[in-house]
Amino acid sequence: MSMHDLIRQLREANSTKIVMLVADGLGGLPIEPGGPTELEKARTPNLDKLASEGCVGLSTPVAPGITPGSGPGHLGLFGYDPLENDIGRGVLEALGIGVEVGPRDVAIRGNFCTIDAEGRVTDRRAGRIPTEVCEQLVAKLRAGVKVEGVETLVEPVREYRLVVRFRGEGLGDNVADTDPLSTGLHTLEPKAGDAASEKTARVAADFLRQAKVVLKDEHPANFLMMRGFARFPSIATMEQVYGLKAAAIAVYPMYRGLARLVGMTVVEPGKTFADQVEAAKGQWSKYDFFFLHYKYTDSTGEDGNFARKVEMIEALDAEIPALMALKPDVLIVTGDHSTPSRMKSHSFHPVPLLLWAPATVRPDLVATFGERPCLQGGLGQFLAKDIMPLAMAHAGRFQKFGA
Amino acid sequence: MSMHDLIRQLREANSTKIVMLVADGLGGLPIEPGGPTELEKARTPNLDKLASEGCVGLSTPVAPGITPGSGPGHLGLFGYDPLENDIGRGVLEALGIGVEVGPRDVAIRGNFCTIDAEGRVTDRRAGRIPTEVCEQLVAKLRAGVKVEGVETLVEPVREYRLVVRFRGEGLGDNVADTDPLSTGLHTLEPKAGDAASEKTARVAADFLRQAKVVLKDEHPANFLMMRGFARFPSIATMEQVYGLKAAAIAVYPMYRGLARLVGMTVVEPGKTFADQVEAAKGQWSKYDFFFLHYKYTDSTGEDGNFARKVEMIEALDAEIPALMALKPDVLIVTGDHSTPSRMKSHSFHPVPLLLWAPATVRPDLVATFGERPCLQGGLGQFLAKDIMPLAMAHAGRFQKFGA
Repeated sequence: MSMHDLIRQLREANSTKIVMLVADGLGGLPIEPGGPTELEKARTPNLDKLASEGCVGLSTPVAPGITPGSGPGHLGLFGYDPLENDIGRGVLEALGIGVEVGPRDVAIRGNFCTIDAEGRVTDRRAGRIPTEVCEQLVAKLRAGVKVEGVETLVEPVREYRLVVRFRGEGLGDNVADTDPLSTGLHTLEPKAGDAASEKTARVAADFLRQAKVVLKDEHPANFLMMRGFARFPSIATMEQVYGLKAAAIAVYPMYRGLARLVGMTVVEPGKTFADQVEAAKGQWSKYDFFFLHYKYTDSTGEDGNFARKVEMIEALDAEIPALMALKPDVLIVTGDHSTPSRMKSHSFHPVPLLLWAPATVRPDLVATFGERPCLQGGLGQFLAKDIMPLAMAHAGRFQKFGA
Repeated sequence: MSMHDLIRQLREANSTKIVMLVADGLGGLPIEPGGPTELEKARTPNLDKLASEGCVGLSTPVAPGITPGSGPGHLGLFGYDPLENDIGRGVLEALGIGVEVGPRDVAIRGNFCTIDAEGRVTDRRAGRIPTEVCEQLVAKLRAGVKVEGVETLVEPVREYRLVVRFRGEGLGDNVADTDPLSTGLHTLEPKAGDAASEKTARVAADFLRQAKVVLKDEHPANFLMMRGFARFPSIATMEQVYGLKAAAIAVYPMYRGLARLVGMTVVEPGKTFADQVEAAKGQWSKYDFFFLHYKYTDSTGEDGNFARKVEMIEALDAEIPALMALKPDVLIVTGDHSTPSRMKSHSFHPVPLLLWAPATVRPDLVATFGERPCLQGGLGQFLAKDIMPLAMAHAGRFQKFGA
């Protein structure tokens, strides 16, 4: 029996509220030997109090040694095995710019490129055209390309990147990339890998044929390539698995999109974490589960700005009392992965995890929230996908298994 | 390769003795914030000495967040994945009252109920008749119901509950419950869900038809409903998997029954834990593995009696020297799940675990047995089903895997 089958069998409804606060890229590393991590350096009296009352540990987002992107990282936190639930590149690109992707859609990453008179690629990124040029070219494509049999959406992303979304019936996503992967070669035809994807391949070929005409006098971006054809993944919703009405309160489109993939309702959050808490307050009676996403622990880590990441953690800590004033029954604080400033990127390191649930928590001896204190915590180290079952248990939402 | 396949491949016999002492529901919670758990509060000099000489950790019975009943809890301890080896409700109910269930049997939970003149259920529990009335009605059923083609056993459980066991060839257990689940409705026919269960459905229908006649003048228990049809699960025995001759020494029928499911021999234990140790002593040369079950850590937890659970732990501790006088090579002390007095029920919390094996143990720094000390222990936290392989290894009963 799978864990999700077991959860469906054991779950029961009650009036508890679960809050999952995801501080993106929370985990870090010391910037110098012997020093503290960002979280250890930050002054976090409110999180420390929760750590003292609750218990802590570390979660591994996907598997030991695996650095996740935002997609697998969040799927794990929502209780889905990221190795079994793949989200295609095209879908992630679309979600990242706020393009909705539904069950009838195929989403595709596009690259503007430069081709010569014989149609051979001379620059796979079209000289990294500025985003404004990308926007103008996308407007031309919208005006000049009409594909039969599907509804087509084209959106600029950044520089030479765009998203194409086809909506219609019978659109498989097993279609090969058209990028030849090196210059001097012709772009490839979008070729279907199975019968269910032939319509998609045909539609994509028609789009590209028309696009070549529309773009022929542009320079340097006189064509485009398609990569990462991806359908909406068929994932059971959180309501189907956990019986939870779930709300997502996230400032950035990517995280709203990921939440939508698992059936959460996206609540308009405003611009700051205080706005997000306020939004949760306004929706408190309507949902069982609240996913609050905080971006700045990741973006400062990606920037390699240790001091700024410390500040962003302290800023988040300052909002904790307002969050606790909502009186959740279970609060999870963690990240979808680590983003150490020292590495300027996502990393594979386990992520600090705090579980606060006054009715049922078994306290450990840890009274501060940080990577090394978490090593001594009562939760130990485990996979992120097991956080949700623990949250459900602490919320009293599981019956006993077997007699 | 499954873990059991690996174990079968690597195991080898020797003359070591493994003792698994299961203090049912051992794990607990502080009764008040900042206080000790039951095990931390109890004065346990003997267990502490073993913790100091051995190593400790915590085991998760089934999966994070899952609260097990006794069935899945013990299967895990015996080294079987509880998610892959389901024991049906009828079988557990039968085991709980000491009714043996074998490979040719289907066991069924029965409820006496009240029906009106039209056959509609007016009380699904027949006014919770006292157990003595249940016993009298069971005697009438035994005398008055004769089902062709199977051997039938009827046993009272408690109040309105009874067990029916059919023994014979070709008895599948895919038969729907006859309980309509609310009053005002007719009871349902026992309907087979597959061809292999049609004989069972026919036999059950015959039993119910005759029972209705036998009970028609009784009040309030003038009929019965059947639920949880279950066959004996096909589980490899501990001898087949581990090559261990295993003895179960348990005062309560449920735990003897669970031990029988995995092929242990049940030894008559007397009434006290001292009797159980004495029984082990008497059988010492005959078996490789001894499962000793101690109930009172669970029952006092279920009662919500923190002080009494502490006493029961201390009483168990006092018996440890007699147990150690048998000179086991490997001793495991743990529980099948936690039963915190504060929750008055089984819980999902990890269970303290002690492994003592002087020949091979790598000692940790922990010198007391308790939930928080166990967090610092050398065994870490892991699934209960992995305890048996560890015990086998410390008993020197595994060859090297691969060259």
